[in-house]
Amino acid sequence: ARPRVGYFYTGKTGSQLLTEKVKKLTVQDYQSIPVVVNESSSVYDAICTMFLEDVGTLFVVNKTASLIGVLSRKDLLRASIGKQDLETMPVSIIMTRMPNITVCEKDDLVIEVANKLIEKQIDALPVIKKDADNNLEVIGRVTKTNMTKVLVDLSHDQLL
Amino acid sequence: ARPRVGYFYTGKTGSQLLTEKVKKLTVQDYQSIPVVVNESSSVYDAICTMFLEDVGTLFVVNKTASLIGVLSRKDLLRASIGKQDLETMPVSIIMTRMPNITVCEKDDLVIEVANKLIEKQIDALPVIKKDADNNLEVIGRVTKTNMTKVLVDLSHDQLL
Repeated sequence: ARPRVGYFYTGKTGSQLLTEKVKKLTVQDYQSIPVVVNESSSVYDAICTMFLEDVGTLFVVNKTASLIGVLSRKDLLRASIGKQDLETMPVSIIMTRMPNITVCEKDDLVIEVANKLIEKQIDALPVIKKDADNNLEVIGRVTKTNMTKVLVDLSHDQLL
Repeated sequence: ARPRVGYFYTGKTGSQLLTEKVKKLTVQDYQSIPVVVNESSSVYDAICTMFLEDVGTLFVVNKTASLIGVLSRKDLLRASIGKQDLETMPVSIIMTRMPNITVCEKDDLVIEVANKLIEKQIDALPVIKKDADNNLEVIGRVTKTNMTKVLVDLSHDQLL
């Protein structure tokens, strides 16, 4: 038999491989760092954190660092035009709560996340990891910005 | 000579054509409807419009309906935690003004827009059309949501 060395023609072009690559990308390839606030934080503090960290979505955790809520820029804007005092109002009053939060895991496909973002009309998903005590540790954040980045990398033939 | 009828094998697969198609998509294939407010509107009215229309970016126009500014959710959130009266403050005080606005036209490539959104760290671009008097008519809006939609359509092999 001939030795199996050298390059073999697979019948696939660079462009084709690229599209297949897009469909295989996982969350961990494109996720961002999550920004979390404690459930006892005030709405005012959450707004400050959002500006300081320059993110559009904050994740709310309890004392055991388990995910219990999500705060969007829209939630904070709605609260800020109300009559209440933002410095005393806890974020837990205005956040979206579990089980109404859409989450994903690091091995999920990026295109599944894209689908969820469009279907649920949300800006970001927390990337979570369940521990032995059923705590939901927040290990990442996937946003429409990350999805736009995939498209940019695709156009530059620079997919991870 | 043989008649040139029937299908010809181009050597390209569906997947390859798809990637080429992504690179040829133009803004008009994926743009959304723009939401505009008048330069004399109050910040409070702009916030209400943003919630009613459920958009993340508003475009500000002058009396001749020409684009003069952009308002993001972040601009409105920043204003809303200030001490001023939102009902009397005009949007022109807090908006991003021309020439600091990144715009695009309907025949621009979607991937060029994706690049601009990432580079400039913005959520949306107005799609504009210059008329004979140099007025900038706002005819559309392209956002990171539209970019995410491209990725979803790509994954479903359903690109326009």
